[in-house]
Amino acid sequence: MHRTATAGSPGATASDGDESWRIRRTAADLDRLAETESIFALGNGWVGWRGTLDEGKPYGTPGSYLNGFYERRDVAYPEDGYGFPQHSDTVVSAPNAALIRLWVDGEPLDVRTGTLVTHERVLDLRAGVLRRETVWISPGGHGVRVRSTRLVSLPRRPVAAVRYEVEPLDAAVELRICSDLLANEHVPEHSDDPRAASVVQDPLTAEARRSAGLDGVLVHRTHRSAQRVAVAVAHLVDAPPTVSTDGDCTPDRLRLTLTGRLAPGERLRLTKFAAYECTPVAGMPPDELADLVVAEADAARADGFDALLGAQRAVLSAAWRTADVELDGDPELQQATRFAIFHLLQAGRPDGDRTIPAKGLTGNGYDGHVLWDTEGYVLPVLTYLAPAVARSALRWRHAHLPEARERAAELGLAGATFPWRTIGGRECSGYWPASTAGLHLNADIADAVLRYVAATGDPDFLAEVGTELLVETARLWHGFGHRAADGGFHLYGVTGPDEYTALVDDNVFTNLMARRNLRGAADAAERHPDVAARLGVQPAEVAGWRDAADAMAVPYDHERGVHQQSAGFTGQPEWDFADTAEDDYPLLLHHPYLELYRRQVVKQADLVLAMLRCPGEFTADEKARNVAYYQPRTVRDSSLSAAPEAVLAAEVGHLDMAYDLFAESVLQDLADLGDKTADGLHLASLAGAWLALVQGFGGMRDDRAVLSFDPRLPDRIDRLAFHLRWHGHRLRVTLTREQARYELPDAGPEDAVELWHHGERVRVGASPVTRPMPPVPDPGPEPPCPPGRRPPRRAAG
Amino acid sequence: MHRTATAGSPGATASDGDESWRIRRTAADLDRLAETESIFALGNGWVGWRGTLDEGKPYGTPGSYLNGFYERRDVAYPEDGYGFPQHSDTVVSAPNAALIRLWVDGEPLDVRTGTLVTHERVLDLRAGVLRRETVWISPGGHGVRVRSTRLVSLPRRPVAAVRYEVEPLDAAVELRICSDLLANEHVPEHSDDPRAASVVQDPLTAEARRSAGLDGVLVHRTHRSAQRVAVAVAHLVDAPPTVSTDGDCTPDRLRLTLTGRLAPGERLRLTKFAAYECTPVAGMPPDELADLVVAEADAARADGFDALLGAQRAVLSAAWRTADVELDGDPELQQATRFAIFHLLQAGRPDGDRTIPAKGLTGNGYDGHVLWDTEGYVLPVLTYLAPAVARSALRWRHAHLPEARERAAELGLAGATFPWRTIGGRECSGYWPASTAGLHLNADIADAVLRYVAATGDPDFLAEVGTELLVETARLWHGFGHRAADGGFHLYGVTGPDEYTALVDDNVFTNLMARRNLRGAADAAERHPDVAARLGVQPAEVAGWRDAADAMAVPYDHERGVHQQSAGFTGQPEWDFADTAEDDYPLLLHHPYLELYRRQVVKQADLVLAMLRCPGEFTADEKARNVAYYQPRTVRDSSLSAAPEAVLAAEVGHLDMAYDLFAESVLQDLADLGDKTADGLHLASLAGAWLALVQGFGGMRDDRAVLSFDPRLPDRIDRLAFHLRWHGHRLRVTLTREQARYELPDAGPEDAVELWHHGERVRVGASPVTRPMPPVPDPGPEPPCPPGRRPPRRAAG
Repeated sequence: MHRTATAGSPGATASDGDESWRIRRTAADLDRLAETESIFALGNGWVGWRGTLDEGKPYGTPGSYLNGFYERRDVAYPEDGYGFPQHSDTVVSAPNAALIRLWVDGEPLDVRTGTLVTHERVLDLRAGVLRRETVWISPGGHGVRVRSTRLVSLPRRPVAAVRYEVEPLDAAVELRICSDLLANEHVPEHSDDPRAASVVQDPLTAEARRSAGLDGVLVHRTHRSAQRVAVAVAHLVDAPPTVSTDGDCTPDRLRLTLTGRLAPGERLRLTKFAAYECTPVAGMPPDELADLVVAEADAARADGFDALLGAQRAVLSAAWRTADVELDGDPELQQATRFAIFHLLQAGRPDGDRTIPAKGLTGNGYDGHVLWDTEGYVLPVLTYLAPAVARSALRWRHAHLPEARERAAELGLAGATFPWRTIGGRECSGYWPASTAGLHLNADIADAVLRYVAATGDPDFLAEVGTELLVETARLWHGFGHRAADGGFHLYGVTGPDEYTALVDDNVFTNLMARRNLRGAADAAERHPDVAARLGVQPAEVAGWRDAADAMAVPYDHERGVHQQSAGFTGQPEWDFADTAEDDYPLLLHHPYLELYRRQVVKQADLVLAMLRCPGEFTADEKARNVAYYQPRTVRDSSLSAAPEAVLAAEVGHLDMAYDLFAESVLQDLADLGDKTADGLHLASLAGAWLALVQGFGGMRDDRAVLSFDPRLPDRIDRLAFHLRWHGHRLRVTLTREQARYELPDAGPEDAVELWHHGERVRVGASPVTRPMPPVPDPGPEPPCPPGRRPPRRAAG
Repeated sequence: MHRTATAGSPGATASDGDESWRIRRTAADLDRLAETESIFALGNGWVGWRGTLDEGKPYGTPGSYLNGFYERRDVAYPEDGYGFPQHSDTVVSAPNAALIRLWVDGEPLDVRTGTLVTHERVLDLRAGVLRRETVWISPGGHGVRVRSTRLVSLPRRPVAAVRYEVEPLDAAVELRICSDLLANEHVPEHSDDPRAASVVQDPLTAEARRSAGLDGVLVHRTHRSAQRVAVAVAHLVDAPPTVSTDGDCTPDRLRLTLTGRLAPGERLRLTKFAAYECTPVAGMPPDELADLVVAEADAARADGFDALLGAQRAVLSAAWRTADVELDGDPELQQATRFAIFHLLQAGRPDGDRTIPAKGLTGNGYDGHVLWDTEGYVLPVLTYLAPAVARSALRWRHAHLPEARERAAELGLAGATFPWRTIGGRECSGYWPASTAGLHLNADIADAVLRYVAATGDPDFLAEVGTELLVETARLWHGFGHRAADGGFHLYGVTGPDEYTALVDDNVFTNLMARRNLRGAADAAERHPDVAARLGVQPAEVAGWRDAADAMAVPYDHERGVHQQSAGFTGQPEWDFADTAEDDYPLLLHHPYLELYRRQVVKQADLVLAMLRCPGEFTADEKARNVAYYQPRTVRDSSLSAAPEAVLAAEVGHLDMAYDLFAESVLQDLADLGDKTADGLHLASLAGAWLALVQGFGGMRDDRAVLSFDPRLPDRIDRLAFHLRWHGHRLRVTLTREQARYELPDAGPEDAVELWHHGERVRVGASPVTRPMPPVPDPGPEPPCPPGRRPPRRAAG
């Protein structure tokens, strides 16, 4: 088998010497199809195409998703309970327009048959496209070269496109190409794992279809969620005149067939432009929606594929100016970091009011639900890289305040209670101790509001959206909390981030985040008295919030000198790590909650996350002691854990450990560390990689609306450079072992940013400022991880 | 409409002046069919027939059950978890042999049609039969009198029978009678209530059938639980010669049809003898099982219905000699008390190793599962009334030790963990915080063992069965508990009896019962060293049990001077009773666990039950303060609550409150207080009625293997007399306001029982002993119940 030269071709995949901007998979990776589909997923925050093969088969889990497009299904419980959701939203595929099938002399191109001479797919992180090149010899001995380029347009919200080229290898071949738009594509059901998807088969009912020449459109609706989806396709054919075309349309499938004989040297090129829209059924009749997407597909075709490619690259280029992180000294993690950021960038949109589900639009894991991953991990990154995307996501929360108020009322709580899992805005979680009881989500949303306002100074957002979110969540806390005889304000019976402990009292993370929520609401209400008045906020209510925040209980174990993750935690029995085999992880698949909950075993950063989010609530010594106490008890069975642990490890001086934890976070999907990448990417873990670098080694903190950096580099990074958006400025930070450099590359003479470097106030204006990197004090011995739970160790780059 | 005279007829229902031995329902009750079916259920601990009408329609929930006969079904969870049961046992009906349908001149007897001149059904608590008399005029104007008598034979385990008589009222009629044996009878699905049944339709597959003349047999098996059931019927026909018979048999229905014309004065009498057996499919082939039941039905017919009636009355008469409670001053509660005891007596069997499900065999509520109701409530009564029945139930637990050991291993626990809900021995509960976490069940079983041994002195039981149960449950506690820095032995993360609090630390009931379990196991192991050796018990293990028991933590609130139901309980926020409407009860149907769990609202006696079971662990003052603290916080949303509250209210001197709580317990089903009697009787509540009388007003305690009485009568009881079996003796206790009388009515000259009367040691031998009733000290003001939750107040009788 030889590898053919591909340089110069439009679908070129040859190396230009910098693999850090590309993700490459070859024939050897075809046995991990579902995982590759997630890694090669393309999206624009609105349309998401999984990286299935053009011909659709073999597949892992096909998927073409629209943000917010879901079906509703019933949920049954062996023992039902009041307030248990009776329905759940489940992501379902919109009609799939990515499919292009090829027959060579009557034999279908299938990578499992014939001879696969070359098979390479490349995700280009700067071009924003997925390229494929295949040289295939059919079982009958007929060779073809196939190149395809796929994109989901970042600037044009509804548009995705594929360019598909075939040429005979060395003898004439009879070709047939079917370009399909297919609704109700079968989705396999893989798993009993509770974290996997609930697949709804045949979710769509056909409502309308049109087909003429090279174009067509299908309109469908979901059965129960009453959503309507229209997808139009418009084709361009560039082929020898011997090739004929034929259209065919059934309720669930629109097909364009090309047939003809190609001689060596001839080429058939088919370009397909697709446009997607969905609305509530009440929003627009089928014909109107069809007209809309037909016009969008036509317009894309009129501009042409090269124009789409150019615009894609231009949008990405602008995005990377802020988003790129340069990490010298470790090419693998440099590439993984860019991969992570790329997926964050394409997961959201700056316009509108959509949010980012836990898997983005890259897979159907968690049923496509939005979880606290968004406000807890993704927005703390996007606020600084693409603040408009963060704003969109928070506007989405705001748009669903009515459902959150209803849910609070249903639960007998005040204010608003946002859903732990949802697509359409209503609670969809099926195990309340680890969902409804996780009230911290509401404080995470408030925290994201406060961060966005602090970082952008956005003058309208707080008035239009932010204050209401802060007030309604503050009301929740004030009503939920209990002023006990000790004078403290207590939050009983909640679940913090650590899902191996549930229904506890005074979870420190929850309490500190609620404190911030209460104070943030008080500040916002005072800053926007008109909004406060509209919401019926009286001065006494504001005073009550401040009192509750001041009196908030923070459990501390004076004997051990550490904070208690929740009241009594440090007195619980230890987990028997010595008797836990390595294949016992994740523990939740091998041990009952009965055992997990009552022991000092931590699934994911909880108290450590509190130290990241609320750094001013802990002294440096407390942080060091807390890290030393909790790291040996934290098993990182959640991908949300490594990043905050990395940040705190860096802060307390364990830089090697921090680097290894960063590596675990950033390689979560590229190395499929949790064996779950098949279901979609772990966007929170990918976001966590940026947090590990910027908050960990950059030492960035933002909890008091002041930007500060306490940078310190691990041995394995020679240079680290990143950027942040701060009040409209683009701040560039470059760290070497010797110095930190702060600059505003785009600054005019008036522009300036004030920040803190290792406790020194620094004003960065038109000229860069450099400051020395202080030595890292000896933190003492590195606290051990639980046996067998060290992060995958990496040699220095 | 006139009531016809019925005196002297075999189906007589006329009053003989003492309604306390009868439960009567007339036409007016036909709108509460399902409830009446439960109240009129007949059983013998092996076969249970609900009190459906002879003709089967209209019905509430038909049911003919065999103890231990169930189908298996899958259980799915919205979010699954390790150790969540994947299957559940569900009671299903065996083929129903009770059906006898009548057509009068072509029109079916149906109480909803025609004219119901008389309709009366009477459950005779001494005869052990259900009698019915109906005078019905068909829509066509043809009148008949129908009498039936139904019994499930107490002495003959497999046998049930019906005698059915028809006579024309005043004109000749054409009659058709179909006597059916019907498999896969349709069962309606009523409810979304989590406490209701999961109905499996068509649970049986036909395997064999035979029919000849007046006899026949059907053999079926369940689909998934692989159980085989055979039911034979044998008929006797006593009719004018004009009546012809015809048999018919399909896989699911065996039918004998009688047809003929009856003149006034003529009578048709059909007697049906049925015999039931079931085995595991592997146990006996269909034909053999068929032969067995045919022989049993034939033998019953050979003896005749009057012989069955006579034997039934004889068995009951002997049982009542011990079981009867005489309560002078309140005829309604006298009747209700006998009703309660009757159902306890017919729920179990003295032979074999079957237990008693929560509903007995009276309905399909809780899917027919066995819960802790058995050891927690029913056996504490039957141990004294029918000790052999208690022994059978404990032998059943012992027979399922293998599954309990497997479950413990699955959960990572030591020893044995018995299932919270089961029929076949495996855990079937679907909400672990209120089931698997309710580990106290294991101590309840141990407590039942210790009580049985103490009350009977049974020499073999402890060696054969009891020691192993005690040892394996002690191992569970010893492994589960945690010796904390304070030196205490703690049980973290469990759920006590109160299901409005879950996953708590150091639930006092659980801890004290575990202490008793540990000490009981240590004593038993030392008493039976051979058994201990077989179980691998070393002296060090026994010492460990004693140490753990001695160090057991018992949370106490020194400020309030009360025990904490669990650690921290008294510091939790209160429930807002002022804002809780009366129709908000039961709270679990209107409020989320999130709110219930974290507040001081108690579903059912928990700390109060601890004071009943472990009275020596509390001083009298503590008991009084604890009652005063917990009664206002206990909403009695469980029928398990009133009885222990009654006992403690009596002990601390609130005798009126105790009486009202007793009334609530004893009327649970006759007055359908919880609106759930349709699903089956609340055997634990009925047992609780006896506990309220004997342990409450009789002041009986037995926790230290010493029988003691601190009797005190409420104003509304003039005289209370009851009996207990104690080491083979029958002790009769008669209480009046002036004195207590203790006697052994059956005693020979050597017989004697030692007991304590209000702290005075009393030896009762061949002669009765009387002691004065001391005055009841003024207990101070009665603690209030939560608003709207006073027991239904009753006027003095």
